[in-house]
Amino acid sequence: MTPFDDALLAPGSDLVELTAAICDIPSVSGDEAALADAIEQTLRGRPHLDVHRDGDAVVARTTFGRDRRVVVAGHIDTVPVADNLPVRLEERPGDAAGAILRGRGTVDMKGGVAVALALACEVGTPGTEPAVDVTWVFYDHEEVEASLNGLGRLARNHPRLLDGDFAVLGEPSNSGIEGGCNGTMRVEVRTRGVAAHSARSWTGVNAIHAAAEVLARLDRYTPRTVTVEGLDYREGLNAVRIRGGIAGNVVPDECVVEVNYRFAPSRSEAEAEQHLREVFDGFDVTVTDSSPGARPGLDAPMAKDFAAAVLAVTGGEPRPKYGWTDVARFAGLGIPAVNFGPGDPLLAHKDDEHLPVAELAACRDALRAWLVG
Amino acid sequence: MTPFDDALLAPGSDLVELTAAICDIPSVSGDEAALADAIEQTLRGRPHLDVHRDGDAVVARTTFGRDRRVVVAGHIDTVPVADNLPVRLEERPGDAAGAILRGRGTVDMKGGVAVALALACEVGTPGTEPAVDVTWVFYDHEEVEASLNGLGRLARNHPRLLDGDFAVLGEPSNSGIEGGCNGTMRVEVRTRGVAAHSARSWTGVNAIHAAAEVLARLDRYTPRTVTVEGLDYREGLNAVRIRGGIAGNVVPDECVVEVNYRFAPSRSEAEAEQHLREVFDGFDVTVTDSSPGARPGLDAPMAKDFAAAVLAVTGGEPRPKYGWTDVARFAGLGIPAVNFGPGDPLLAHKDDEHLPVAELAACRDALRAWLVG
Repeated sequence: MTPFDDALLAPGSDLVELTAAICDIPSVSGDEAALADAIEQTLRGRPHLDVHRDGDAVVARTTFGRDRRVVVAGHIDTVPVADNLPVRLEERPGDAAGAILRGRGTVDMKGGVAVALALACEVGTPGTEPAVDVTWVFYDHEEVEASLNGLGRLARNHPRLLDGDFAVLGEPSNSGIEGGCNGTMRVEVRTRGVAAHSARSWTGVNAIHAAAEVLARLDRYTPRTVTVEGLDYREGLNAVRIRGGIAGNVVPDECVVEVNYRFAPSRSEAEAEQHLREVFDGFDVTVTDSSPGARPGLDAPMAKDFAAAVLAVTGGEPRPKYGWTDVARFAGLGIPAVNFGPGDPLLAHKDDEHLPVAELAACRDALRAWLVG
Repeated sequence: MTPFDDALLAPGSDLVELTAAICDIPSVSGDEAALADAIEQTLRGRPHLDVHRDGDAVVARTTFGRDRRVVVAGHIDTVPVADNLPVRLEERPGDAAGAILRGRGTVDMKGGVAVALALACEVGTPGTEPAVDVTWVFYDHEEVEASLNGLGRLARNHPRLLDGDFAVLGEPSNSGIEGGCNGTMRVEVRTRGVAAHSARSWTGVNAIHAAAEVLARLDRYTPRTVTVEGLDYREGLNAVRIRGGIAGNVVPDECVVEVNYRFAPSRSEAEAEQHLREVFDGFDVTVTDSSPGARPGLDAPMAKDFAAAVLAVTGGEPRPKYGWTDVARFAGLGIPAVNFGPGDPLLAHKDDEHLPVAELAACRDALRAWLVG
């Protein structure tokens, strides 16, 4: 794969062409090699960077011997393409929000990848030496099951490569800082019955009917909003899948409701599980998946500096992050982390995913201002 | 396929070996050819029978010019084998019910097929001329969707072959007459919502939660028992399948509950549908499958004669049939029909399907007494 042209990466660029070029290399989870190659070849050989490759993750580090190190990370994979590639630039001359780039990855999160790639090339060159050392991480398999996550694999294979005092994850955050994230837990709530031929249903017990109470409790449930370190986290409790029945003429003996609980970072995984067991008291509850939340971490000194830099450049106030992101993975490594990237997270995974292109340079400028100091 | 040996078919046989031989030719729906071949070759060439083949259905008719004709029909397919072939004979010397034959098909309904095959060979031979003409029908694809049913195919391809004044379907009925059958209708009850990422579930509407009320109505529903022509038909209303959700992190926008309604033969399909639309008022209801019930037909003169013959030999009183059977298909052709066969219908499709072997000869004797007069 050809590296990205220096013209696309120029310090004064609006980053639109670079973002488009990154989006137009499809990289659905599991198929990131071509994009990882292009990123690696773009970074390798630059005298201010040590470049490492692990699978389809690329890590590039400055080594100025600064007393603090910032990790800037972003995933390079996307959810499946929905007939929305190549990306299209729409100028929208009458619209105050300006031009948008439309297509898969523009929001989640190749805009953030473009910001990071351009800054990785620039920060550390003569005249743009950073105030901190910087580790740039471009990783694979974020959009699929946690066991495949490239950041997790780096943490297992090369833990020292992720060392740092603070981390910025370039997930879309409307160019403001989004602190921490909710935890997420999945449980299966299972009802059991007795199978029977549906022509003689009185000889059986219908497990799907028994799930009425499970769904009623979900339908009645009022999620909390919890304030953590000044940010309000909205929780959620949802059936995400339901299954039951084996044939059109059999009273089913099992019904399984898969429930996803998103819980504020003030609640531990153990507390979240306990809460679910109370909500579904009387039913068989099995935890199938769990990831802790992360407190916003905005009381750390570096976070305060970063928040000030972002406020000055993009006008963005810190807000809570609702979705689970790898911020929590950094928190688990003991590294305070925040989300900061261009794009509206509500458009992530949508077929009409699109990005106001003005956010690209604004994010780049805010991040550069903080790193260079 | 080798025809069944005449020794197995002998008039004085207890039919156990013949039933075992028929069971041990596996004939799961769609794979009936070998058994159909064996039946065809057993019947073809006998001077008292005209034999026809259509797909894997075999029809054999006597042509004595009698003023009435009886159709004796049975399906030769089974539900999938559950490690319960070959069949095993268990003598059970201490058990009053006597020996049993255990394995797939013994009840549903190769015992009935053995009775019919033996009688087809015997009734019409010199000294055993019947009082009525007899049409023996062995057909395929009864255990799968109605569109594949071999009896239905015969009615379309060769309607004259099924002509008759009365029909006996050899489905298991504990060797008593079971009259008519309930109708069956399947509907999909569908709820809709608005998809959203489960991390921001307040931006969506959960279709699975909306199904709580559908399941609650099913759970509260009290099925009727309806007396038709002196027989009590128990109804049933059951969710047989439920599905909803596309991923572990998406608020689902659709949930579908598949409901099976078994309704008394006093109710038409249109009335059954109307009832379901009332039960699920406010929800989207789509009929996916429907078969009418059949009134018991026990007021027909031939039915009364047959009931007397059965009572005399097996002691069985007429009872209602709960399961939908092809009796309703005969009713649709204008031919009164009853179920009559060896075995307990509650054991049909069960892994431990088994048949008290004494019922085989009893059914054969009762049916022969009525046909020969």
